[in-house]
Amino acid sequence: MENRIALAGSGNVGTALLELLHEKRGELAEKYGFTYEVTLITDLMKGTVANANGLDLERILREIKTNRTFANMPQTEGTFPELLQASEATMLAEATPTNIKTGEPGLSHIMEALSRGISVTTTNKGPLSVAWDELHETAKKYGAKFRHEGVVMSGTPVVQMLECGLAGASVTGIEGILNGTTNFILTRMYEGAPYAEALAEAQRLGYAEADPGGDIDGWDAAAKVSILARIAFGKKIPLEEIDRIGISGVTPERIAAAKQSGRKTKPVAGIKYVDGALRGYVTPREIPLDHPLASVNGAANAIAVTTDNLGCVTLIGPGAGRRETGQALLADLISMSK
Amino acid sequence: MENRIALAGSGNVGTALLELLHEKRGELAEKYGFTYEVTLITDLMKGTVANANGLDLERILREIKTNRTFANMPQTEGTFPELLQASEATMLAEATPTNIKTGEPGLSHIMEALSRGISVTTTNKGPLSVAWDELHETAKKYGAKFRHEGVVMSGTPVVQMLECGLAGASVTGIEGILNGTTNFILTRMYEGAPYAEALAEAQRLGYAEADPGGDIDGWDAAAKVSILARIAFGKKIPLEEIDRIGISGVTPERIAAAKQSGRKTKPVAGIKYVDGALRGYVTPREIPLDHPLASVNGAANAIAVTTDNLGCVTLIGPGAGRRETGQALLADLISMSK
Repeated sequence: MENRIALAGSGNVGTALLELLHEKRGELAEKYGFTYEVTLITDLMKGTVANANGLDLERILREIKTNRTFANMPQTEGTFPELLQASEATMLAEATPTNIKTGEPGLSHIMEALSRGISVTTTNKGPLSVAWDELHETAKKYGAKFRHEGVVMSGTPVVQMLECGLAGASVTGIEGILNGTTNFILTRMYEGAPYAEALAEAQRLGYAEADPGGDIDGWDAAAKVSILARIAFGKKIPLEEIDRIGISGVTPERIAAAKQSGRKTKPVAGIKYVDGALRGYVTPREIPLDHPLASVNGAANAIAVTTDNLGCVTLIGPGAGRRETGQALLADLISMSK
Repeated sequence: MENRIALAGSGNVGTALLELLHEKRGELAEKYGFTYEVTLITDLMKGTVANANGLDLERILREIKTNRTFANMPQTEGTFPELLQASEATMLAEATPTNIKTGEPGLSHIMEALSRGISVTTTNKGPLSVAWDELHETAKKYGAKFRHEGVVMSGTPVVQMLECGLAGASVTGIEGILNGTTNFILTRMYEGAPYAEALAEAQRLGYAEADPGGDIDGWDAAAKVSILARIAFGKKIPLEEIDRIGISGVTPERIAAAKQSGRKTKPVAGIKYVDGALRGYVTPREIPLDHPLASVNGAANAIAVTTDNLGCVTLIGPGAGRRETGQALLADLISMSK
């Protein structure tokens, strides 16, 4: 069967997915039997193009590269439900910007698709934070698949590992480095840079946003902890109940003292049982140099998962670059096509 | 649907699987909808028991623990095909001892099951080394599933990651610590133990066999490299073409010199392109202390996978204990039940 893919949000990540789908058409057909057309691309800034027979990806990627808009192409108008209908999409990749409070516009997009039986993959933490139960119940009700590999560790397949690879094992604890920006800043401080310089460098490299509070204060890591609690423990830990200490109070003196005692200060986040109750936390912590997490530097991410059957399994991957996150969407699309 | 599981080989690993299936019956039904009976257990030493309605696992585990035989239970006789038939098995877990040259008896067991449309999971490298193509073609021909998570890194889900988690990414290189025994010995030598003492300790702890050549000389790691070449690159690298240097020549002086320059001597194995051709290798190598593989100590295993879309992803897990390897079989059984 040929799959018809709709894309909502063609910023860095969405465009990276389009590039992968364009470059790898032959490879994906051969290796996975995954054949497809992209039939809808809608983006708040660039406009909307749709064609149920398949869009010309080469042309579209050229337009994005040279003009950053679809304005020179025939536009399709309509509400999102109308666009989905017209595009005859069988799958939706949702990559609009994250709003952790309302989940919008991703939440409406995903609900609309799922309730039409269209499978969805998203890299957007917002909808999952706001409406986890509703989304998964809707997917189940309408027989659609719903995946979200990219919401934690971008394309490094931690969700797949927790759901499938470790099937049969019960997770007893999780600890990781889930936010690349703070890891980059603490790595640079370990190397001797002052906090302000490290932060400015992270912003220059595009890791940190102009308002870096979401990363620095631990909100991004906390949102990931909340999602991991659902996936790994099947439990809800509301964002506001997560013990959260940001990195802005980490002094050069603290880092130097840690270094002297053979440890690195790392921005860790995790979930553990305390007196029988599940607790989520985000905090800077000193890690011994011979621990796997101490080798996770720069914007890289990692997660250590402890289970009853296996002891500890650690997964380390690159930071959330555009291509890395596009890969998460691609792996989900392939998985959903089966 | 209820699954009917046959087990060939009830040594350490097979028995660990039986324990997991017995302990986790309620949990597996609830989390994965995975319901089952074990309808056949055949073991060269312990004997054969079968019942198409399901064996009494509690009784069987007690017999194994107290008597190490099924001799006190009603035995079932017959050839393996007859036993499979009588047990009405829908899945086979193959965990007989590994023979890397003939693949037997596992190879015959697996071929018999697959050609009856019975899905198979195995932890046995032998059959895969001898007959990869034949086994996978037979599975395809008869619509059976064939999985083998446990042949590399036991229950740490590297096969699942390569096949599903990283779907859409092309692997460009692999390097890991794939043999726990040699990692244990080099770890102890790094801590100051002489080679002979470290080897004796590995044997005492059950990591190394009485004849440790398969580990020490790199044959075990080479067999895993050969299997990884199939999974990650879809290519055949025959065992005898793998560049293979064992660890018996690693001197205390070499390890001390590495230590002084901030490196650890590790038993690495990998696959890389050299002048466009795929090469497999097994060799001791010095790794900088801040590299993830340097944190993989004792009998632990690890693999670093480099891909086009993601850069490098590293997976670290515990050694090949009985429960860890039983977990690999369990995850495969759950996956095959879907």
